[in-house]
Amino acid sequence: MEAGGGGKFTPLLHWILPLRLGDREMFERLRAVHGDRLQVLEFDGLPYARLRDDHRHLPRGTVFFPSGRWVAGYPHIGRIMALESGLRAQFQAPVWAEEKINGYNVRLVCEQGRWLALTRGGFVCGFTTHRLPDLLDLTPVEEDWVVCAEVAGAENPYLSGHPPDITEDVRLFVFDLMPVGRAGFLSHEEKRVRVAQWGLPAVPCFGRFALEDTGALAAILEALDARGREGVVFKEDSLRDKRAKYVTASASLDDIGVNSANLMELPPEYFTSRVLRLALFLADREQAVAARAGALGQAFLGGLAEMIRRFREEGQAYVRYRCRFRDPSVARGFFQELRARTGRQVRLREVGLEADNGFWVLTFDRVPSHINGLLNQLLSGGLVFD
Amino acid sequence: MEAGGGGKFTPLLHWILPLRLGDREMFERLRAVHGDRLQVLEFDGLPYARLRDDHRHLPRGTVFFPSGRWVAGYPHIGRIMALESGLRAQFQAPVWAEEKINGYNVRLVCEQGRWLALTRGGFVCGFTTHRLPDLLDLTPVEEDWVVCAEVAGAENPYLSGHPPDITEDVRLFVFDLMPVGRAGFLSHEEKRVRVAQWGLPAVPCFGRFALEDTGALAAILEALDARGREGVVFKEDSLRDKRAKYVTASASLDDIGVNSANLMELPPEYFTSRVLRLALFLADREQAVAARAGALGQAFLGGLAEMIRRFREEGQAYVRYRCRFRDPSVARGFFQELRARTGRQVRLREVGLEADNGFWVLTFDRVPSHINGLLNQLLSGGLVFD
Repeated sequence: MEAGGGGKFTPLLHWILPLRLGDREMFERLRAVHGDRLQVLEFDGLPYARLRDDHRHLPRGTVFFPSGRWVAGYPHIGRIMALESGLRAQFQAPVWAEEKINGYNVRLVCEQGRWLALTRGGFVCGFTTHRLPDLLDLTPVEEDWVVCAEVAGAENPYLSGHPPDITEDVRLFVFDLMPVGRAGFLSHEEKRVRVAQWGLPAVPCFGRFALEDTGALAAILEALDARGREGVVFKEDSLRDKRAKYVTASASLDDIGVNSANLMELPPEYFTSRVLRLALFLADREQAVAARAGALGQAFLGGLAEMIRRFREEGQAYVRYRCRFRDPSVARGFFQELRARTGRQVRLREVGLEADNGFWVLTFDRVPSHINGLLNQLLSGGLVFD
Repeated sequence: MEAGGGGKFTPLLHWILPLRLGDREMFERLRAVHGDRLQVLEFDGLPYARLRDDHRHLPRGTVFFPSGRWVAGYPHIGRIMALESGLRAQFQAPVWAEEKINGYNVRLVCEQGRWLALTRGGFVCGFTTHRLPDLLDLTPVEEDWVVCAEVAGAENPYLSGHPPDITEDVRLFVFDLMPVGRAGFLSHEEKRVRVAQWGLPAVPCFGRFALEDTGALAAILEALDARGREGVVFKEDSLRDKRAKYVTASASLDDIGVNSANLMELPPEYFTSRVLRLALFLADREQAVAARAGALGQAFLGGLAEMIRRFREEGQAYVRYRCRFRDPSVARGFFQELRARTGRQVRLREVGLEADNGFWVLTFDRVPSHINGLLNQLLSGGLVFD
């Protein structure tokens, strides 16, 4: 057993899930290695376990199934904030430049004949899993592979931000293939061949660039910025497959804009770090700050003004979410699960579940308690000391 | 001795200052009451002690002299962010409305025949003390009184922010009189009489207002806002002398603007709290956010862009300060003292000390280490994980 893990070990007896004998043994063995970092869960009758934190070279979000198959967590990609010096400092060979999509990361894996969507944290996402048949055709994909993709669009249960052109429902964009039971990705060329062969929807790829080719990359980034897109992921065309991302001013503005409504809920450095990124993007592109100042101010104030308006007129500040299901009972189950996983500082309130053109649209509100408490205090004339 | 204070007690033997026997006894008695909350200091041969934290109903910054005389710390004034409900909730009688000046708080006290300026934290400020003869004539003031005032202007050693019309040197504005050796202030009327009689420069007073008179107060606040002024302090015209402040949108914008250069040094909630104040001021005055969005964005980005420019062109990001002295040796002594009191995360760099029309102008830079380290890493192409 691992050093330091002893104190955290919870006997299997305490696990709540009813597990088959084989499953139990499998998880017990994993538990001996990972201790309480391992969380055992269940999705629709299928037990699975996720890593809550990085451990033993496995990233947080790594998922284990009773079959012995496992899916490595998706690694974090570092960020450069200066294009020219960043490419020079981080890479040793030409890079592929792929679009970075503003959505949430999923890993798709086929377990016991059924494709599941795993979130970054290693939970099976009931929404994405249910909607997979609408998002892509996985029948040609061999079951040895994990399909890594971004799900993005205005109607998703997690994020208010989305690519500006996906104003309805969600879409899926594949950016990596990873073998089941191994960390690491297929090379760009091999991935491209399989994605094309299997007919999967891929993220846009802008091509392969020499590290000196910053002019062309700058032009791509400026065009993405102008279209409100998030940025680019660079992937070195080499065995080590080194990666780095570079995001646009639009991405920082969008993050602030959609989250200013959560100003009191998010850590305040969420906002200051994005202001700094924005300033560095503008400096890196030699763009005047005046051109984006109005957008930055609006990003901060717009969301807050709407929260204040809702609090005054409707008695509660909230952020509304919508997402589409094919089956109303799946929607209800997903919402219950989401509610159970949401911390105490945010209340989820169901607004409605309505049929719409072959879909069931679930509408719900996130009602953050901190800003509601604060607005209640301040708007009723309360005194604050700061 | 106080409960819990025992563990913190440092024997007098360890104090560095050479104290006369009587002074030593006085501070030893205070030490027995306040423990390590008491810090013994010295200014120009005069020993004194300050309270580092609130303790026993005395605010942080309370100052004790060996003579047995002491000056209470200036209490914090709570903030309302909704004018109408705030006046209704916080006050029971009409209020005096005085202008809140964007500067630093000082308490002036005469000890052993010499007027000293104490900062909010309870240090003797060598700059302000030296400049008192230029700021006001204290000869008529009885020595039983502490004069509470704001010092404001473009050329001060502490703050980049200042009232827009004081572009050179500093000015002083009296807002309270407090008896030596007692907490609490003289009533508005008594203060007004003495301040006039002694010929002291007072903060502008807008008059006495019924709590229902929100229309007139709103007009005053909007006029202050339009002139880039900080706001108003309300003081209840009653024995309990309850107070509250209300600041303009301009004040929040100015705070963000002058401090965005310190984005990495200040706690990030410094910025988010001011964004929230700004949003609440606009909502309270029913003003559209669009009118201030550009100013907010500029406030964030302007200071950062200048820091990035300085780092690129001059090799270091810094914020420049200037302040005027009458005597170059006082300027040098003050700068040494300031340097000794500045934390390790900021380096102070002297730029020059030059004669100018009867003054000696000290110019120095604050060079914050965090943002310099970060810009060095990022602009040279470093990778960050966030």
